[in-house]
Amino acid sequence: MCIRVLPFQNHTQKMNSIEENLKQLQKKAPLVHNITNYVVMNSTANALLAIGASPVMAHAIEEVEEITSISSALVLNIGTLSNDWIKAMISAGKKAKSLGIPIVFDPVGAGASKLRNDTCAQIIAECTPDIIRGNASEIMALKDASISTKGVDSTKSSTDAIQIAKQLATSLENIIVISGATDYITNGKKVISIQNGSPLMGKVTGMGCTASAVIGAFTGCNRDYLNATANAMAIMGIAGEIAEKNSKGPGSFQMNFIDALYTINSKAIQSKMKITSNED
Amino acid sequence: MCIRVLPFQNHTQKMNSIEENLKQLQKKAPLVHNITNYVVMNSTANALLAIGASPVMAHAIEEVEEITSISSALVLNIGTLSNDWIKAMISAGKKAKSLGIPIVFDPVGAGASKLRNDTCAQIIAECTPDIIRGNASEIMALKDASISTKGVDSTKSSTDAIQIAKQLATSLENIIVISGATDYITNGKKVISIQNGSPLMGKVTGMGCTASAVIGAFTGCNRDYLNATANAMAIMGIAGEIAEKNSKGPGSFQMNFIDALYTINSKAIQSKMKITSNED
Amino acid sequence: MCIRVLPFQNHTQKMNSIEENLKQLQKKAPLVHNITNYVVMNSTANALLAIGASPVMAHAIEEVEEITSISSALVLNIGTLSNDWIKAMISAGKKAKSLGIPIVFDPVGAGASKLRNDTCAQIIAECTPDIIRGNASEIMALKDASISTKGVDSTKSSTDAIQIAKQLATSLENIIVISGATDYITNGKKVISIQNGSPLMGKVTGMGCTASAVIGAFTGCNRDYLNATANAMAIMGIAGEIAEKNSKGPGSFQMNFIDALYTINSKAIQSKMKITSNED
Repeated sequence: MCIRVLPFQNHTQKMNSIEENLKQLQKKAPLVHNITNYVVMNSTANALLAIGASPVMAHAIEEVEEITSISSALVLNIGTLSNDWIKAMISAGKKAKSLGIPIVFDPVGAGASKLRNDTCAQIIAECTPDIIRGNASEIMALKDASISTKGVDSTKSSTDAIQIAKQLATSLENIIVISGATDYITNGKKVISIQNGSPLMGKVTGMGCTASAVIGAFTGCNRDYLNATANAMAIMGIAGEIAEKNSKGPGSFQMNFIDALYTINSKAIQSKMKITSNED
Repeated sequence: MCIRVLPFQNHTQKMNSIEENLKQLQKKAPLVHNITNYVVMNSTANALLAIGASPVMAHAIEEVEEITSISSALVLNIGTLSNDWIKAMISAGKKAKSLGIPIVFDPVGAGASKLRNDTCAQIIAECTPDIIRGNASEIMALKDASISTKGVDSTKSSTDAIQIAKQLATSLENIIVISGATDYITNGKKVISIQNGSPLMGKVTGMGCTASAVIGAFTGCNRDYLNATANAMAIMGIAGEIAEKNSKGPGSFQMNFIDALYTINSKAIQSKMKITSNED
Repeated sequence: MCIRVLPFQNHTQKMNSIEENLKQLQKKAPLVHNITNYVVMNSTANALLAIGASPVMAHAIEEVEEITSISSALVLNIGTLSNDWIKAMISAGKKAKSLGIPIVFDPVGAGASKLRNDTCAQIIAECTPDIIRGNASEIMALKDASISTKGVDSTKSSTDAIQIAKQLATSLENIIVISGATDYITNGKKVISIQNGSPLMGKVTGMGCTASAVIGAFTGCNRDYLNATANAMAIMGIAGEIAEKNSKGPGSFQMNFIDALYTINSKAIQSKMKITSNED
């Protein structure tokens, strides 16, 4: 069953509209604790600031529990993982879990090495992230580490991964997001599809990592994680479309994307959003 | 007593004007050794290059003393601190102290964790930084670690912090800077206020860290640290105003800010600077 | 003997033209494994994506061999070195060597500390990089660690370094690149000179590091490393000239440079390239 849902807020009464969730976010300015990779720290922090959240990056085992405790969301990203950082992620994740703070997990490069596969397994087992966002290859690798991944870019189509995502979400009782030309967000039963975005998003490093951080910001203000995650992914895609208009390439796109996150408004959201919902 | 000082160079005969200090800087191209956080390394290095300085980032305990020894200034920033980096900061700080090289300390997130508070106390005790720059919350946390800090963004007004800054500066015999809508620079007796800047500076990550690095560049060429620090903060604020003009949001602002640091000239400085000086 | 070579592809039948090599690269989208410094990770990844390659950053000793094994090139860069990272570089380098994967070495700040000199010596001895790219000071420091280096910026003219580069290339049986206003690429016998580029490239952090990464991308698709390296350096210089046109300073230049790498085409290459070849 496929339901075309426009505007999104009519989908169910319980769901906040994207605009409402964004207003909540901008009012609350949630502190988002990121234990993330070196490549994207600057762009992630700037994206969070642009959308109205407050980023904090801290990875020392001695302080991560304290920092998580004062945060509204925790984002774990294994892009440039190493043992000390993994320990800190687990420690922060357990603290977040104990406090009911949402955990977003970004399994960057899952499938590319034993260390990444083992770390994914450990984080899932010990922290049970509330939301996991990856590309199709990464999500499939979570189910089966034998699937070959080409570095951090996806070699699998998103549609291949949807069934696996649904199984994972059902098994983990959480939200799984597959990023791609179309984004899929599932809680195991419902699959929300978002067809916003720009091809240039794949030519800028860390757009997926930014999406995970923005999910952190939205879930930090909205306990309906399926809704919050879909809202975050829609904002990412719509901002990408706005940014693409005035961009000559990925350099100007990266700049325009941050501006778009900062200036995005109800009119742009309403006119551009392309969201579909399926349910078993 | 409040004295309006325009132009700044008339304030005292000993003080270099902003333009003179900037010319010195651009002639000397001082090497600035940064032991700083992962989030801002790229933007800090680019800001230093744009203003005419030469950045070096090096954190290995095995080499920090050597790198500090060939540098004109040392900038210590605890944004993403960990034990190995703290040790390196202390080692570099002691070397700088022994050689009379100015030390700028940026207590990012002071108050947010015991690790940060302990590290601030240790750096202040063992290195006695010549200049400490933070937002109001961070400066207040240096005096009283019990003041709650929200991550790395300030929750205190700058005016609350001025008395504490003066006490700190008197006690440490150094310069304390409180960044905010108005910047305050004090040596314990005199308080210089700078009302330049742009609200977008708070929406780009690491603008405070950049300010600390630019203070490093200016103090690396001007032994009057109060004057050099005020000049650096004025340049930051004026460049922010120039950058804001053509910016649609924090993405374009970040780019325009670097361009403004590169192109800033006497005319812009003279026409824009808003500096006031108070003395007990 | 000096031969003016325009267009470059006529120089020798064996050589791929820049355009052919670029097309190969964009078709293959080679995975380039970077063990590089914190300052440039974001800009390096974006440059590789813009030119059509696929970047991966991974430094944990537990996974570097696996990541190198699935890559088309390995780039080692000691900009912010520390012991754990050095061990990982050696491990990845040995794996690359055993698999015939090209290794590009960027000896950032060689000469500035004993740690850097020792690490350069170790990497050269244990991994024998296929290509080494540095500024004049860095290349000279590889030959004689007693030459003083000013941080990471060059204090030596490129011409001083050419003889040393030729000796190094002959001794190591590899390719040495000296970056500067004119770039020199030598295999010990032939010296290719490239006079493309922009003065603004020296005002943006990590342009040299980007060059090393782009060399990785080109050598990952072209076993004639002298040719591939010259092609990479020419693309860097030409993109720099394109970017300079619309830039007000280093901020806009950095953005425009990424756009230029993404949009560069045969017409721009043919009309702009300034390549000369000398042979003993």
